[in-house]
Amino acid sequence: MRFCRYDNDRLGVVRDDRVHDVTSVLEKLPAVRWPLPVYDPLIAALPKLRGDMEAAADRVQGVPISSVKLLNPVPNPSKVIGAPVNYHAHIDEANKDAQINFGKIIKTIDHYGVFLKSNSSLSGASEPVAVVEKDRRTDHEVELSAIIGEECFDVPEEGALKYIAGYAIGLDMTIRGPEERSLRKSLDRFSVVGPYVVTADEIADPDNLDMEITVNGIVKQKANTSQLIFGVAKLVSYCSNFYRLYPGDIIMTGTPEGVGPVQAGDVMHAKIEQIGEMTVQVVRRNEPLPAPAPAA
Amino acid sequence: MRFCRYDNDRLGVVRDDRVHDVTSVLEKLPAVRWPLPVYDPLIAALPKLRGDMEAAADRVQGVPISSVKLLNPVPNPSKVIGAPVNYHAHIDEANKDAQINFGKIIKTIDHYGVFLKSNSSLSGASEPVAVVEKDRRTDHEVELSAIIGEECFDVPEEGALKYIAGYAIGLDMTIRGPEERSLRKSLDRFSVVGPYVVTADEIADPDNLDMEITVNGIVKQKANTSQLIFGVAKLVSYCSNFYRLYPGDIIMTGTPEGVGPVQAGDVMHAKIEQIGEMTVQVVRRNEPLPAPAPAA
Repeated sequence: MRFCRYDNDRLGVVRDDRVHDVTSVLEKLPAVRWPLPVYDPLIAALPKLRGDMEAAADRVQGVPISSVKLLNPVPNPSKVIGAPVNYHAHIDEANKDAQINFGKIIKTIDHYGVFLKSNSSLSGASEPVAVVEKDRRTDHEVELSAIIGEECFDVPEEGALKYIAGYAIGLDMTIRGPEERSLRKSLDRFSVVGPYVVTADEIADPDNLDMEITVNGIVKQKANTSQLIFGVAKLVSYCSNFYRLYPGDIIMTGTPEGVGPVQAGDVMHAKIEQIGEMTVQVVRRNEPLPAPAPAA
Repeated sequence: MRFCRYDNDRLGVVRDDRVHDVTSVLEKLPAVRWPLPVYDPLIAALPKLRGDMEAAADRVQGVPISSVKLLNPVPNPSKVIGAPVNYHAHIDEANKDAQINFGKIIKTIDHYGVFLKSNSSLSGASEPVAVVEKDRRTDHEVELSAIIGEECFDVPEEGALKYIAGYAIGLDMTIRGPEERSLRKSLDRFSVVGPYVVTADEIADPDNLDMEITVNGIVKQKANTSQLIFGVAKLVSYCSNFYRLYPGDIIMTGTPEGVGPVQAGDVMHAKIEQIGEMTVQVVRRNEPLPAPAPAA
Protein backbone atom coordinates (compact mmCIF):
# COMPACT_ATOMS: atom_id res chain seq x y z
CA MET A 1 0.00 0.00 0.00
CA ARG A 2 1.02 3.57 -0.66
CA PHE A 3 -0.39 6.40 1.41
CA CYS A 4 0.04 10.16 1.41
CA ARG A 5 -0.97 13.23 3.40
CA TYR A 6 -2.27 15.98 1.16
CA ASP A 7 -4.10 19.29 0.80
CA ASN A 8 -5.65 20.22 4.15
CA ASP A 9 -4.25 17.24 6.14
CA ARG A 10 -6.25 14.65 4.23
CA LEU A 11 -5.14 11.02 4.19
CA GLY A 12 -4.95 9.34 0.79
CA VAL A 13 -4.27 5.87 -0.56
CA VAL A 14 -2.28 6.10 -3.81
CA ARG A 15 -3.07 3.67 -6.63
CA ASP A 16 -1.81 4.10 -10.21
CA ASP A 17 -1.04 7.80 -9.73
CA ARG A 18 -4.47 8.53 -8.28
CA VAL A 19 -5.16 9.57 -4.70
CA HIS A 20 -8.20 8.04 -2.97
CA ASP A 21 -9.44 10.03 0.02
CA VAL A 22 -9.53 7.79 3.12
CA THR A 23 -9.50 10.58 5.71
CA SER A 24 -12.56 9.10 7.44
CA VAL A 25 -10.40 6.22 8.71
CA LEU A 26 -8.56 8.67 10.99
CA GLU A 27 -11.68 8.77 13.18
CA LYS A 28 -10.60 5.36 14.47
CA LEU A 29 -7.49 6.84 16.06
CA PRO A 30 -7.83 7.83 19.72
CA ALA A 31 -8.39 11.54 20.39
CA VAL A 32 -5.63 13.01 22.55
CA ARG A 33 -5.00 16.38 24.24
CA TRP A 34 -1.84 16.45 26.41
CA PRO A 35 0.62 14.95 26.59
CA LEU A 36 0.66 13.87 22.96
CA PRO A 37 2.18 10.48 22.19
CA VAL A 38 5.90 10.39 21.37
CA TYR A 39 5.15 8.37 18.19
CA ASP A 40 3.22 8.95 14.96
CA PRO A 41 -0.32 7.73 15.74
CA LEU A 42 -1.12 6.69 12.16
CA ILE A 43 2.08 4.69 11.68
CA ALA A 44 1.59 3.03 15.08
CA ALA A 45 -1.95 1.98 14.11
CA LEU A 46 -1.14 1.00 10.52
CA PRO A 47 -1.29 -2.78 11.05
CA LYS A 48 -4.85 -2.35 12.40
CA LEU A 49 -6.03 0.37 9.99
CA ARG A 50 -4.56 -0.89 6.76
CA GLY A 51 -7.58 -3.02 5.87
CA ASP A 52 -9.90 -0.09 6.58
CA MET A 53 -7.78 2.20 4.43
CA GLU A 54 -7.84 -0.21 1.50
CA ALA A 55 -11.61 -0.69 1.86
CA ALA A 56 -12.22 3.06 2.04
CA ALA A 57 -10.07 3.55 -1.05
CA ASP A 58 -12.19 1.00 -2.93
CA ARG A 59 -15.31 3.07 -2.25
CA VAL A 60 -14.16 6.43 -3.65
CA GLN A 61 -13.01 7.76 -7.00
CA GLY A 62 -9.41 8.85 -6.99
CA VAL A 63 -8.07 12.19 -8.20
CA PRO A 64 -4.78 12.54 -10.09
CA ILE A 65 -1.84 12.80 -7.69
CA SER A 66 -0.61 15.73 -9.78
CA SER A 67 -3.71 17.68 -8.71
CA VAL A 68 -3.06 17.53 -4.95
CA LYS A 69 -0.63 19.30 -2.64
CA LEU A 70 1.61 16.59 -1.18
CA LEU A 71 2.62 17.08 2.48
CA ASN A 72 5.06 15.02 4.53
CA PRO A 73 3.28 11.67 5.15
CA VAL A 74 5.00 11.09 8.53
CA PRO A 75 4.36 14.28 10.52
CA ASN A 76 4.97 12.98 14.06
CA PRO A 77 8.22 11.09 14.53
CA SER A 78 9.95 11.22 17.90
CA LYS A 79 13.13 11.88 15.91
CA VAL A 80 14.48 12.23 12.39
CA ILE A 81 17.82 10.45 12.14
CA GLY A 82 20.47 11.09 9.50
CA ALA A 83 23.36 8.87 8.48
CA PRO A 84 26.48 10.90 7.66
CA VAL A 85 28.98 9.79 5.01
CA ASN A 86 27.38 6.40 4.47
CA TYR A 87 28.58 5.97 0.85
CA HIS A 88 32.35 5.63 0.18
CA ALA A 89 32.22 7.68 -3.03
CA HIS A 90 30.58 10.58 -1.12
CA ILE A 91 33.44 10.56 1.41
CA ASP A 92 35.92 10.89 -1.43
CA GLU A 93 34.14 13.91 -2.90
CA ALA A 94 33.76 15.51 0.53
CA ASN A 95 37.47 15.22 1.22
CA LYS A 96 38.29 16.84 -2.13
CA ASP A 97 35.96 19.83 -1.70
CA ALA A 98 36.98 22.46 0.89
CA GLN A 99 33.47 23.93 0.67
CA ILE A 100 32.18 20.65 2.08
CA ASN A 101 34.92 19.57 4.51
CA PHE A 102 35.80 23.01 5.97
CA GLY A 103 39.38 21.89 6.59
CA LYS A 104 38.47 18.68 8.39
CA ILE A 105 39.24 15.13 7.25
CA ILE A 106 35.89 13.43 6.68
CA LYS A 107 35.69 9.94 8.17
CA THR A 108 32.93 7.32 7.84
CA ILE A 109 29.64 6.76 9.63
CA ASP A 110 31.46 4.28 11.87
CA HIS A 111 33.24 7.27 13.43
CA TYR A 112 30.43 9.85 13.58
CA GLY A 113 27.53 7.56 14.32
CA VAL A 114 24.22 9.08 13.32
CA PHE A 115 22.86 12.60 13.81
CA LEU A 116 19.47 14.26 14.26
CA LYS A 117 17.43 16.56 12.04
CA SER A 118 14.67 18.63 13.65
CA ASN A 119 11.05 17.49 13.41
CA SER A 120 10.22 21.08 12.51
CA SER A 121 12.30 20.74 9.32
CA LEU A 122 9.94 18.12 7.84
CA SER A 123 8.01 18.97 4.70
CA GLY A 124 6.41 17.32 1.70
CA ALA A 125 7.05 17.17 -2.03
CA SER A 126 4.74 20.08 -2.87
CA GLU A 127 6.33 22.47 -0.38
CA PRO A 128 9.23 24.43 -1.86
CA VAL A 129 12.63 24.38 -0.15
CA ALA A 130 13.86 27.89 0.69
CA VAL A 131 17.58 28.60 0.40
CA VAL A 132 19.75 31.51 1.39
CA GLU A 133 21.53 32.83 -1.63
CA LYS A 134 25.12 34.04 -1.71
CA ASP A 135 25.97 33.76 2.05
CA ARG A 136 25.86 30.03 2.31
CA ARG A 137 25.98 27.06 -0.02
CA THR A 138 22.91 24.82 0.33
CA ASP A 139 23.16 21.30 -1.14
CA HIS A 140 20.70 18.63 -2.24
CA GLU A 141 21.23 15.17 -0.74
CA VAL A 142 18.86 12.46 -1.95
CA GLU A 143 18.42 9.48 0.36
CA LEU A 144 16.32 6.41 0.92
CA SER A 145 14.21 7.04 4.05
CA ALA A 146 13.07 4.18 6.26
CA ILE A 147 10.12 4.73 8.60
CA ILE A 148 10.05 2.74 11.84
CA GLY A 149 6.78 0.87 12.38
CA GLU A 150 7.21 -0.70 15.77
CA GLU A 151 8.89 0.40 18.99
CA CYS A 152 12.27 -1.27 19.35
CA PHE A 153 15.41 -1.01 21.45
CA ASP A 154 18.76 -2.78 21.26
CA VAL A 155 17.79 -5.12 18.41
CA PRO A 156 20.31 -7.13 16.37
CA GLU A 157 20.94 -6.43 12.69
CA GLU A 158 19.48 -9.76 11.71
CA GLY A 159 15.73 -9.36 11.58
CA ALA A 160 15.86 -5.58 12.08
CA LEU A 161 13.98 -4.91 8.83
CA LYS A 162 10.80 -6.19 10.46
CA TYR A 163 10.64 -2.98 12.53
CA ILE A 164 10.25 -0.90 9.37
CA ALA A 165 6.74 0.19 8.35
CA GLY A 166 7.69 1.59 4.97
CA TYR A 167 9.95 3.70 2.81
CA ALA A 168 9.93 7.08 1.12
CA ILE A 169 12.30 9.34 -0.73
CA GLY A 170 14.13 11.79 1.52
CA LEU A 171 15.89 15.02 0.71
CA ASP A 172 18.39 15.88 3.42
CA MET A 173 18.97 19.53 2.53
CA THR A 174 22.22 20.84 3.99
CA ILE A 175 23.90 24.18 4.50
CA ARG A 176 27.68 23.88 4.31
CA GLY A 177 29.63 25.44 7.13
CA PRO A 178 31.52 24.65 10.31
CA GLU A 179 28.45 24.25 12.53
CA GLU A 180 27.01 21.01 13.87
CA ARG A 181 25.23 18.83 11.32
CA SER A 182 22.12 18.81 13.51
CA LEU A 183 21.87 22.60 13.01
CA ARG A 184 22.88 22.92 9.34
CA LYS A 185 20.39 20.23 8.29
CA SER A 186 17.43 21.34 10.40
CA LEU A 187 16.16 24.52 8.79
CA ASP A 188 12.45 24.71 7.98
CA ARG A 189 11.65 22.41 5.02
CA PHE A 190 15.16 20.93 4.97
CA SER A 191 13.83 17.38 5.46
CA VAL A 192 11.59 16.59 2.52
CA VAL A 193 9.83 13.22 2.78
CA GLY A 194 7.68 11.99 -0.06
CA PRO A 195 5.93 11.68 -2.30
CA TYR A 196 4.15 9.11 -0.07
CA VAL A 197 5.01 6.11 2.08
CA VAL A 198 5.35 2.73 0.38
CA THR A 199 4.75 -0.03 2.93
CA ALA A 200 7.68 -2.37 3.52
CA ASP A 201 5.99 -5.40 1.96
CA GLU A 202 6.24 -3.71 -1.46
CA ILE A 203 10.02 -3.32 -1.31
CA ALA A 204 11.79 -6.56 -2.13
CA ASP A 205 15.22 -5.46 -0.87
CA PRO A 206 15.85 -1.93 0.48
CA ASP A 207 19.59 -2.50 0.01
CA ASN A 208 19.23 -2.80 -3.75
CA LEU A 209 17.35 0.23 -5.07
CA ASP A 210 18.42 2.59 -7.83
CA MET A 211 18.14 6.23 -6.85
CA GLU A 212 18.67 9.47 -8.70
CA ILE A 213 18.20 13.20 -8.40
CA THR A 214 18.27 15.74 -11.20
CA VAL A 215 18.46 19.51 -10.87
CA ASN A 216 16.88 21.35 -13.79
CA GLY A 217 16.93 18.10 -15.75
CA ILE A 218 20.63 17.37 -15.23
CA VAL A 219 21.49 14.18 -13.35
CA LYS A 220 23.45 15.07 -10.19
CA GLN A 221 23.33 11.99 -7.96
CA LYS A 222 22.81 8.46 -9.26
CA ALA A 223 23.56 5.39 -7.19
CA ASN A 224 22.18 2.17 -5.78
CA THR A 225 21.52 1.55 -2.09
CA SER A 226 23.69 -1.57 -2.38
CA GLN A 227 26.60 0.91 -2.04
CA LEU A 228 25.56 1.90 1.51
CA ILE A 229 28.31 1.36 4.11
CA PHE A 230 25.75 0.71 6.86
CA GLY A 231 22.83 -1.01 5.11
CA VAL A 232 19.24 -0.43 6.23
CA ALA A 233 19.04 -3.29 8.77
CA LYS A 234 22.42 -2.31 10.24
CA LEU A 235 21.23 1.31 10.61
CA VAL A 236 18.09 0.25 12.48
CA SER A 237 20.12 -1.98 14.77
CA TYR A 238 22.86 0.65 15.32
CA CYS A 239 20.37 3.40 16.20
CA SER A 240 18.43 1.06 18.50
CA ASN A 241 21.66 0.23 20.35
CA PHE A 242 21.77 3.86 21.49
CA TYR A 243 18.12 4.84 21.92
CA ARG A 244 14.60 3.57 21.66
CA LEU A 245 12.97 3.86 18.22
CA TYR A 246 9.26 4.65 17.95
CA PRO A 247 6.65 4.25 15.19
CA GLY A 248 7.16 7.11 12.76
CA ASP A 249 10.85 7.65 13.48
CA ILE A 250 12.51 8.43 10.18
CA ILE A 251 15.98 7.17 9.28
CA MET A 252 17.47 8.98 6.30
CA THR A 253 20.03 6.41 5.24
CA GLY A 254 22.72 8.67 3.78
CA THR A 255 23.50 10.28 0.45
CA PRO A 256 25.73 9.08 -2.39
CA GLU A 257 28.27 11.13 -4.34
CA GLY A 258 27.16 14.04 -6.51
CA VAL A 259 25.90 16.48 -3.87
CA GLY A 260 25.85 20.05 -5.05
CA PRO A 261 24.34 23.47 -4.46
CA VAL A 262 20.86 24.58 -5.47
CA GLN A 263 19.51 28.09 -5.82
CA ALA A 264 16.16 29.81 -6.11
CA GLY A 265 14.37 28.84 -9.31
CA ASP A 266 15.94 25.38 -9.46
CA VAL A 267 13.71 22.32 -9.75
CA MET A 268 14.83 19.08 -8.10
CA HIS A 269 13.42 15.78 -9.31
CA ALA A 270 14.17 12.74 -7.17
CA LYS A 271 13.27 9.13 -7.76
CA ILE A 272 13.90 5.80 -6.11
CA GLU A 273 13.14 2.47 -7.74
CA GLN A 274 9.98 0.71 -6.45
CA ILE A 275 9.05 3.85 -4.48
CA GLY A 276 8.28 6.67 -6.88
CA GLU A 277 9.39 10.14 -7.80
CA MET A 278 8.81 13.70 -6.70
CA THR A 279 9.50 17.21 -7.96
CA VAL A 280 10.52 19.83 -5.41
CA GLN A 281 10.92 23.54 -6.14
CA VAL A 282 13.66 25.74 -4.71
CA VAL A 283 12.76 29.28 -3.70
CA ARG A 284 14.62 32.14 -2.08
CA ARG A 285 14.72 32.59 1.68
CA ASN A 286 14.73 36.27 2.50
CA GLU A 287 16.16 36.02 5.99
CA PRO A 288 19.98 35.83 6.12
CA LEU A 289 21.84 33.31 8.27
CA PRO A 290 24.41 34.15 10.94
CA ALA A 291 27.86 34.19 9.35
CA PRO A 292 30.00 31.17 10.20
CA ALA A 293 32.80 31.77 12.70
CA PRO A 294 36.14 32.45 10.96
CA ALA A 295 38.49 29.45 10.84
CA ALA A 296 40.82 29.49 13.86
CA MET B 1 3.15 30.15 38.40
CA ARG B 2 4.87 26.79 38.67
CA PHE B 3 3.41 23.72 37.03
CA CYS B 4 4.43 20.08 36.79
CA ARG B 5 3.40 16.85 35.11
CA TYR B 6 3.27 13.98 37.55
CA ASP B 7 2.17 10.43 38.34
CA ASN B 8 -0.08 9.19 35.54
CA ASP B 9 0.18 12.30 33.32
CA ARG B 10 -1.57 14.58 35.79
CA LEU B 11 -1.12 18.35 35.60
CA GLY B 12 -0.25 20.11 38.83
CA VAL B 13 0.22 23.68 40.03
CA VAL B 14 3.06 23.85 42.56
CA ARG B 15 2.72 26.18 45.56
CA ASP B 16 5.00 26.04 48.60
CA ASP B 17 6.20 22.51 47.85
CA ARG B 18 2.67 21.21 47.42
CA VAL B 19 1.15 19.98 44.16
CA HIS B 20 -2.45 20.95 43.40
CA ASP B 21 -4.15 18.71 40.83
CA VAL B 22 -5.50 20.84 37.97
CA THR B 23 -5.74 18.04 35.39
CA SER B 24 -9.37 18.96 34.66
CA VAL B 25 -8.14 22.12 32.87
CA LEU B 26 -6.68 19.95 30.12
CA GLU B 27 -10.24 19.29 28.90
CA LYS B 28 -10.14 22.81 27.46
CA LEU B 29 -7.41 21.81 24.99
CA PRO B 30 -8.62 20.69 21.56
CA ALA B 31 -8.74 16.91 21.00
CA VAL B 32 -6.53 15.86 18.10
CA ARG B 33 -5.88 12.61 16.22
CA TRP B 34 -3.49 12.97 13.25
CA PRO B 35 -1.47 14.86 12.40
CA LEU B 36 -0.56 16.02 15.89
CA PRO B 37 0.55 19.63 16.26
CA VAL B 38 4.28 20.34 15.99
CA TYR B 39 4.17 22.27 19.30
CA ASP B 40 3.36 21.47 22.94
CA PRO B 41 -0.40 22.09 23.25
CA LEU B 42 -0.30 23.08 26.91
CA ILE B 43 2.55 25.56 26.51
CA ALA B 44 0.83 27.04 23.44
CA ALA B 45 -2.41 27.53 25.41
CA LEU B 46 -0.77 28.71 28.62
CA PRO B 47 -1.68 32.41 28.25
CA LYS B 48 -5.35 31.39 27.98
CA LEU B 49 -5.34 28.57 30.55
CA ARG B 50 -3.24 30.12 33.26
CA GLY B 51 -6.17 31.75 35.02
CA ASP B 52 -8.10 28.47 34.94
CA MET B 53 -5.11 26.60 36.33
CA GLU B 54 -4.73 29.05 39.22
CA ALA B 55 -8.47 28.90 39.96
CA ALA B 56 -8.49 25.10 39.87
CA ALA B 57 -5.48 25.04 42.21
CA ASP B 58 -7.38 27.25 44.68
CA ARG B 59 -10.19 24.70 44.86
CA VAL B 60 -8.17 21.60 45.81
CA GLN B 61 -5.89 20.55 48.64
CA GLY B 62 -2.33 20.04 47.56
CA VAL B 63 -0.16 17.01 48.27
CA PRO B 64 3.55 17.24 49.16
CA ILE B 65 5.68 17.41 46.01
CA SER B 66 7.92 14.77 47.59
CA SER B 67 4.99 12.31 47.39
CA VAL B 68 4.51 12.48 43.61
CA LYS B 69 6.44 11.08 40.65
CA LEU B 70 7.70 14.07 38.68
CA LEU B 71 7.68 13.66 34.88
CA ASN B 72 9.06 16.04 32.27
CA PRO B 73 6.67 19.03 32.26
CA VAL B 74 7.23 19.80 28.54
CA PRO B 75 6.56 16.50 26.76
CA ASN B 76 5.91 17.79 23.21
CA PRO B 77 8.54 20.19 21.88
CA SER B 78 9.24 20.24 18.15
CA LYS B 79 12.92 20.16 19.15
CA VAL B 80 15.26 20.12 22.11
CA ILE B 81 18.20 22.41 21.44
CA GLY B 82 21.55 22.26 23.19
CA ALA B 83 24.21 24.95 23.40
CA PRO B 84 27.72 23.46 23.26
CA VAL B 85 30.65 25.01 25.10
CA ASN B 86 28.76 28.12 26.16
CA TYR B 87 30.86 28.83 29.27
CA HIS B 88 34.54 29.77 28.84
CA ALA B 89 35.68 27.80 31.89
CA HIS B 90 34.06 24.64 30.49
CA ILE B 91 36.03 25.06 27.24
CA ASP B 92 39.24 25.20 29.24
CA GLU B 93 38.48 21.96 31.09
CA ALA B 94 37.37 20.24 27.86
CA ASN B 95 40.64 21.12 26.15
CA LYS B 96 42.64 19.74 29.09
CA ASP B 97 40.80 16.39 29.27
CA ALA B 98 41.41 13.91 26.43
CA GLN B 99 38.39 11.90 27.61
CA ILE B 100 36.25 14.91 26.71
CA ASN B 101 38.00 16.34 23.63
CA PHE B 102 38.97 13.07 21.89
CA GLY B 103 41.97 14.72 20.30
CA LYS B 104 40.10 17.71 18.91
CA ILE B 105 40.57 21.36 19.85
CA ILE B 106 37.31 22.50 21.42
CA LYS B 107 36.12 25.88 20.12
CA THR B 108 33.20 28.02 21.30
CA ILE B 109 29.49 28.01 20.55
CA ASP B 110 30.17 30.69 17.95
CA HIS B 111 31.88 27.98 15.88
CA TYR B 112 29.60 24.99 16.47
CA GLY B 113 26.29 26.77 16.63
CA VAL B 114 23.68 24.75 18.51
CA PHE B 115 22.83 21.05 18.35
CA LEU B 116 19.76 18.86 18.85
CA LYS B 117 18.83 16.32 21.50
CA SER B 118 16.10 13.80 20.70
CA ASN B 119 12.57 14.35 21.98
CA SER B 120 12.62 10.68 23.00
CA SER B 121 15.44 11.43 25.47
CA LEU B 122 13.23 13.68 27.63
CA SER B 123 12.44 12.62 31.17
CA GLY B 124 11.52 14.04 34.54
CA ALA B 125 13.16 14.39 37.93
CA SER B 126 11.69 11.17 39.32
CA GLU B 127 12.86 9.00 36.44
CA PRO B 128 16.34 7.56 36.98
CA VAL B 129 19.05 8.12 34.36
CA ALA B 130 20.55 4.85 33.13
CA VAL B 131 24.25 4.75 32.31
CA VAL B 132 26.50 2.19 30.72
CA GLU B 133 29.26 1.27 33.06
CA LYS B 134 32.87 0.67 32.07
CA ASP B 135 32.50 0.96 28.25
CA ARG B 136 31.74 4.63 28.12
CA ARG B 137 32.06 7.63 30.37
CA THR B 138 28.70 9.34 30.96
CA ASP B 139 28.78 12.88 32.37
CA HIS B 140 26.36 15.14 34.19
CA GLU B 141 25.88 18.62 32.70
CA VAL B 142 23.54 20.93 34.58
CA GLU B 143 21.99 23.75 32.58
CA LEU B 144 19.34 26.43 32.70
CA SER B 145 16.56 25.39 30.30
CA ALA B 146 14.38 27.98 28.57
CA ILE B 147 11.01 26.90 27.16
CA ILE B 148 9.71 28.77 24.14
CA GLY B 149 6.15 30.07 24.60
CA GLU B 150 5.35 31.64 21.26
CA GLU B 151 6.18 30.74 17.67
CA CYS B 152 9.00 32.91 16.39
CA PHE B 153 11.40 33.11 13.49
CA ASP B 154 14.35 35.40 12.76
CA VAL B 155 13.87 37.61 15.81
CA PRO B 156 16.51 40.05 17.09
CA GLU B 157 18.26 39.54 20.42
CA GLU B 158 16.63 42.64 21.84
CA GLY B 159 13.18 41.64 23.02
CA ALA B 160 13.78 37.90 22.43
CA LEU B 161 13.04 37.03 26.07
CA LYS B 162 9.36 37.75 25.43
CA TYR B 163 9.14 34.50 23.43
CA ILE B 164 10.01 32.45 26.52
CA ALA B 165 7.16 30.84 28.48
CA GLY B 166 9.25 29.69 31.40
CA TYR B 167 12.34 28.04 32.78
CA ALA B 168 13.36 24.73 34.33
CA ILE B 169 16.50 22.92 35.37
CA GLY B 170 17.97 20.75 32.63
CA LEU B 171 20.39 17.86 32.84
CA ASP B 172 22.11 17.35 29.51
CA MET B 173 23.49 13.86 30.11
CA THR B 174 26.35 13.06 27.74
CA ILE B 175 28.34 10.02 26.70
CA ARG B 176 31.91 10.92 25.82
CA GLY B 177 33.20 9.61 22.51
CA PRO B 178 33.96 10.64 18.95
CA GLU B 179 30.36 10.48 17.70
CA GLU B 180 28.09 13.42 16.92
CA ARG B 181 26.79 15.34 19.91
CA SER B 182 23.21 14.81 18.70
CA LEU B 183 23.73 11.04 19.17
CA ARG B 184 25.78 10.98 22.37
CA LYS B 185 23.31 13.26 24.16
CA SER B 186 20.08 11.64 22.96
CA LEU B 187 19.84 8.33 24.79
CA ASP B 188 16.61 7.58 26.63
CA ARG B 189 16.32 9.78 29.75
CA PHE B 190 19.43 11.81 28.82
CA SER B 191 17.46 15.09 28.80
CA VAL B 192 16.06 15.58 32.28
CA VAL B 193 13.78 18.62 32.61
CA GLY B 194 12.37 19.55 35.97
CA PRO B 195 11.28 19.61 38.64
CA TYR B 196 8.56 21.81 37.07
CA VAL B 197 8.28 24.86 34.83
CA VAL B 198 8.54 28.30 36.44
CA THR B 199 6.81 30.86 34.25
CA ALA B 200 9.03 33.62 32.89
CA ASP B 201 7.37 36.39 34.94
CA GLU B 202 8.86 34.83 38.11
CA ILE B 203 12.46 35.06 36.88
CA ALA B 204 13.83 38.57 37.23
CA ASP B 205 16.89 38.00 35.01
CA PRO B 206 17.67 34.59 33.45
CA ASP B 207 21.25 35.75 32.85
CA ASN B 208 21.92 36.10 36.57
CA LEU B 209 21.03 32.85 38.30
CA ASP B 210 23.21 30.75 40.57
CA MET B 211 23.24 27.09 39.63
CA GLU B 212 24.81 24.01 41.16
CA ILE B 213 24.87 20.26 40.92
CA THR B 214 26.14 17.84 43.54
CA VAL B 215 26.84 14.13 43.07
CA ASN B 216 26.47 12.13 46.29
CA GLY B 217 26.55 15.40 48.21
CA ILE B 218 29.79 16.70 46.68
CA VAL B 219 29.56 19.95 44.71
CA LYS B 220 30.63 19.30 41.09
CA GLN B 221 29.39 22.27 39.07
CA LYS B 222 28.71 25.69 40.55
CA ALA B 223 28.32 28.79 38.41
CA ASN B 224 26.10 31.70 37.54
CA THR B 225 24.33 32.12 34.21
CA SER B 226 25.95 35.55 33.96
CA GLN B 227 28.99 33.57 32.73
CA LEU B 228 27.17 32.34 29.62
CA ILE B 229 28.93 33.26 26.35
CA PHE B 230 25.61 33.42 24.46
CA GLY B 231 23.09 34.68 27.01
CA VAL B 232 19.48 33.52 26.95
CA ALA B 233 18.11 36.24 24.64
CA LYS B 234 21.03 35.77 22.25
CA LEU B 235 20.39 32.02 22.15
CA VAL B 236 16.71 32.50 21.28
CA SER B 237 17.63 34.97 18.57
CA TYR B 238 20.46 32.82 17.19
CA CYS B 239 18.29 29.68 17.00
CA SER B 240 15.44 31.61 15.41
CA ASN B 241 17.82 32.91 12.74
CA PHE B 242 18.19 29.32 11.51
CA TYR B 243 14.78 27.76 12.10
CA ARG B 244 11.31 28.46 13.41
CA LEU B 245 10.81 27.99 17.15
CA TYR B 246 7.51 26.62 18.46
CA PRO B 247 5.79 26.65 21.85
CA GLY B 248 7.41 23.96 23.96
CA ASP B 249 10.78 24.02 22.21
CA ILE B 250 13.42 23.61 24.89
CA ILE B 251 16.74 25.41 24.78
CA MET B 252 19.30 23.95 27.18
CA THR B 253 21.60 26.91 27.51
CA GLY B 254 24.92 25.14 28.09
CA THR B 255 26.88 23.77 31.01
CA PRO B 256 29.59 25.39 33.12
CA GLU B 257 32.89 23.81 34.22
CA GLY B 258 32.94 20.81 36.52
CA VAL B 259 31.38 18.14 34.32
CA GLY B 260 32.25 14.63 35.36
CA PRO B 261 31.20 11.00 35.17
CA VAL B 262 28.37 9.37 37.09
CA GLN B 263 27.76 5.71 37.73
CA ALA B 264 24.95 3.49 38.95
CA GLY B 265 24.03 4.24 42.53
CA ASP B 266 25.00 7.90 42.32
CA VAL B 267 22.49 10.57 43.30
CA MET B 268 22.54 13.91 41.46
CA HIS B 269 21.05 16.96 43.11
CA ALA B 270 20.65 20.04 40.91
CA LYS B 271 19.39 23.46 41.83
CA ILE B 272 18.96 26.80 40.15
CA GLU B 273 18.18 30.01 42.00
CA GLN B 274 14.54 31.20 41.70
CA ILE B 275 13.59 27.90 40.01
CA GLY B 276 14.03 25.07 42.47
CA GLU B 277 15.89 21.85 42.95
CA MET B 278 15.61 18.21 41.99
CA THR B 279 17.17 14.90 42.90
CA VAL B 280 17.83 12.41 40.10
CA GLN B 281 19.00 8.82 40.61
CA VAL B 282 21.54 7.07 38.41
CA VAL B 283 20.97 3.40 37.62
CA ARG B 284 22.73 0.84 35.47
CA ARG B 285 21.83 0.32 31.83
CA ASN B 286 22.18 -3.34 30.97
CA GLU B 287 22.51 -2.93 27.20
CA PRO B 288 26.05 -2.13 26.00
CA LEU B 289 26.80 0.60 23.47
CA PRO B 290 28.58 0.13 20.15
CA ALA B 291 32.31 0.67 20.68
CA PRO B 292 33.60 3.97 19.32
CA ALA B 293 35.63 3.79 16.12
CA PRO B 294 39.39 3.71 16.82
CA ALA B 295 41.16 7.04 16.31
CA ALA B 296 42.52 7.26 12.75
